[in-house]
Amino acid sequence: MSDQRRVVIIGGGFGGLTAAKRLRRTAVQITLVDQRNHHLFQPLLYQVATAALNPADIATPIRSVLSSQRNVEVLLDRATGIDRVAKKVILAGGELTYDYLVIGTGATHSYFGHPEWAENAPGLKSIEDALEIRRRVLLAYEAAEREATSDQAPWLTFVVVGGGPTGVELAGALAEISRHTLSRDFRHIDPADAKVILLEGEDRVLPVYPPSLSQKAKRQLQGLGVEVRTGRRVTAIDREGVSIGDERIEARTVLWAAGVQASPLARALDVPLDSAGRVLVREDLTVPGDDAVFVIGDLAAVTQDDGTFVPGVAPSAIQEGAHTADNIRRLIRGQPTKPFRYWNKGSLATIGRAAGVADLGRLRLSGAVAWLAWLMIHIFFLIGFRNRVLVLIQWAWSYLTYQRGARLITGAPELQLPDRGDH
Amino acid sequence: MSDQRRVVIIGGGFGGLTAAKRLRRTAVQITLVDQRNHHLFQPLLYQVATAALNPADIATPIRSVLSSQRNVEVLLDRATGIDRVAKKVILAGGELTYDYLVIGTGATHSYFGHPEWAENAPGLKSIEDALEIRRRVLLAYEAAEREATSDQAPWLTFVVVGGGPTGVELAGALAEISRHTLSRDFRHIDPADAKVILLEGEDRVLPVYPPSLSQKAKRQLQGLGVEVRTGRRVTAIDREGVSIGDERIEARTVLWAAGVQASPLARALDVPLDSAGRVLVREDLTVPGDDAVFVIGDLAAVTQDDGTFVPGVAPSAIQEGAHTADNIRRLIRGQPTKPFRYWNKGSLATIGRAAGVADLGRLRLSGAVAWLAWLMIHIFFLIGFRNRVLVLIQWAWSYLTYQRGARLITGAPELQLPDRGDH
Repeated sequence: MSDQRRVVIIGGGFGGLTAAKRLRRTAVQITLVDQRNHHLFQPLLYQVATAALNPADIATPIRSVLSSQRNVEVLLDRATGIDRVAKKVILAGGELTYDYLVIGTGATHSYFGHPEWAENAPGLKSIEDALEIRRRVLLAYEAAEREATSDQAPWLTFVVVGGGPTGVELAGALAEISRHTLSRDFRHIDPADAKVILLEGEDRVLPVYPPSLSQKAKRQLQGLGVEVRTGRRVTAIDREGVSIGDERIEARTVLWAAGVQASPLARALDVPLDSAGRVLVREDLTVPGDDAVFVIGDLAAVTQDDGTFVPGVAPSAIQEGAHTADNIRRLIRGQPTKPFRYWNKGSLATIGRAAGVADLGRLRLSGAVAWLAWLMIHIFFLIGFRNRVLVLIQWAWSYLTYQRGARLITGAPELQLPDRGDH
Repeated sequence: MSDQRRVVIIGGGFGGLTAAKRLRRTAVQITLVDQRNHHLFQPLLYQVATAALNPADIATPIRSVLSSQRNVEVLLDRATGIDRVAKKVILAGGELTYDYLVIGTGATHSYFGHPEWAENAPGLKSIEDALEIRRRVLLAYEAAEREATSDQAPWLTFVVVGGGPTGVELAGALAEISRHTLSRDFRHIDPADAKVILLEGEDRVLPVYPPSLSQKAKRQLQGLGVEVRTGRRVTAIDREGVSIGDERIEARTVLWAAGVQASPLARALDVPLDSAGRVLVREDLTVPGDDAVFVIGDLAAVTQDDGTFVPGVAPSAIQEGAHTADNIRRLIRGQPTKPFRYWNKGSLATIGRAAGVADLGRLRLSGAVAWLAWLMIHIFFLIGFRNRVLVLIQWAWSYLTYQRGARLITGAPELQLPDRGDH
């Protein structure tokens, strides 16, 4: 036992979990460290934020995913530092020595140098984030219902900052909630009066997609009632709304889907980072000058032959995790590592009910076909058979009835609502 | 419109919701006030606390339950006072005038004069309570896994205070988690070593059931590995455990299922209360000296012909809500109210997987039959078809695999775990 190599994996996301599973039959001792007890299927997190799915539908305990793999130990802890000389990971509650280290701690929100915006424009990275967004969105309608008619508009204005896949998906879902889900539930407001505004700094939404699909996404969003505004950068966010230069949008609910930055653990490595704080890894995903430390997933800046970076999506993290496991096996056998090559299987985004866009290389889909492809792929990759069945049922239900099954306002110790208007 | 009587209902629990729905065809203007946006199916709350069900499976937005009933307005607010002279309800954010007032704000935990116990022994009344209990239970295993072997025992000791239905159900579920759900997930502990201790002050568990069923419940609990200790009263609870007189139980997880006390709104009525703070209502469920104010559900102390009180369970709240709606209709028509008669349909409690007890008058069931009866009845009364399907699937899954699908640790901003032991 004790002469087996010790592999420490930090982060139980798509990359870390794939690396651990791929080492199933290798004679190594693996410790997977995560500060959460669950693997999170982040591509569906916006469905929790918009009350369609439950947290447990898209999250699975890391322990239970790996329970039958006896060469893995799962440790709930937070890595705070890395001592590459002593080959040690410093944890909040102890330390771990390693022979090979795999870091996949992902990314967090970035407010472009305005951390004070966070309070009024929550982002979407964790279950807690999603529940906080759900709470704010649902409470905004409750507040509007209470207000005098003249004061309802800011409560019924929802601004999504950032027109990437998350922003597009959030905006589409918010529009559907207002038009369909809540349509009969209130007495003093018409939820269909709600305004959903999607702001994107570039000149089109989904800027990493081909322009023709950006155009289709925009039209589908507009069809749902979303106001799409591109080429405009937010200059201020406060409790009452958003400023874009001289223009002002009064909105009590602002959601952030614009910037991400790498997890701060990258800085502990003391190696060159890119502007988003990601580690500029070598071809084989190791950090410069250290053959024992691999960085994968959203934390890694992986340069491709054409000079661009590998995109920060789940499939690339999965491929990098698998490749790193293979490279660790090669190193143990005394063989050289192999360079990583990203295989782009395409991109998909959904825009509300039965609408979406898909860029699958030569094949470009939009509308209901893209939505169906998105649905199938996402359900297929959800971890755990039970989750797949439940998610499918909840979607079938939402699809048939326009209802969203998880419309709970929880977690707030005290309600902060306006006084009741004169009804 | 304006000459219609105004009915204000405070509380969207079983009683309040039933009263509102029963007045569907009556020409009144109803306002239902609740400080939560959801109706909670409390009998299944312990299933959320023990990671088997999701919050949204047992909670439904009050608005969506009543969305098609056009004579109801739902208001998210907290009632802070009642002015019976001016016929007004004082809310945190405004006030409401009424012609008839129905109060069903239920009960909360009571720590028998030891409010300081609350911090270390959470009770189970809300979604937030259930998620906090789930967090503590799951974190206790994580902490044990990290500790040196000699320090694991207090983390693996779970004390449930109170042997009524909630305590019995919680203890049974906790035992199953340790024996089955987590059995293969850890490397440094055997979850089956966990000790679940159920403490009851009376001389038997389920003291309101017939003694023969208490006996059977005790045996079924013991069969699951629960240590049942009756006739013992807790004298102290702190961060490290529980004291019972001179005896000390070291336990990092203590759950409170012992005392309840009526919601503080009862005191705002300025009428006689019983020792648990409940309103001693008249035969027709009105408060003494006021024909316009009804109190129902767990907030009401309803004396029966034999001198005992109507039990504080969902069926009595439902019956009281319906009866009150009928009495309000009678008053509007100028007729006298009728006295309330409780129809006891029986009591059911479940004790883990395929075990339980049922007291259905002459019919007394135990074991798998009681469990099946419990399952059917609870699923039948769950509000919303979607919830029923989802709950049934999750139970089928849990039953077949012993897994619990909602094993998420969420909500804690910072982990507080012991340093890692010497493994």
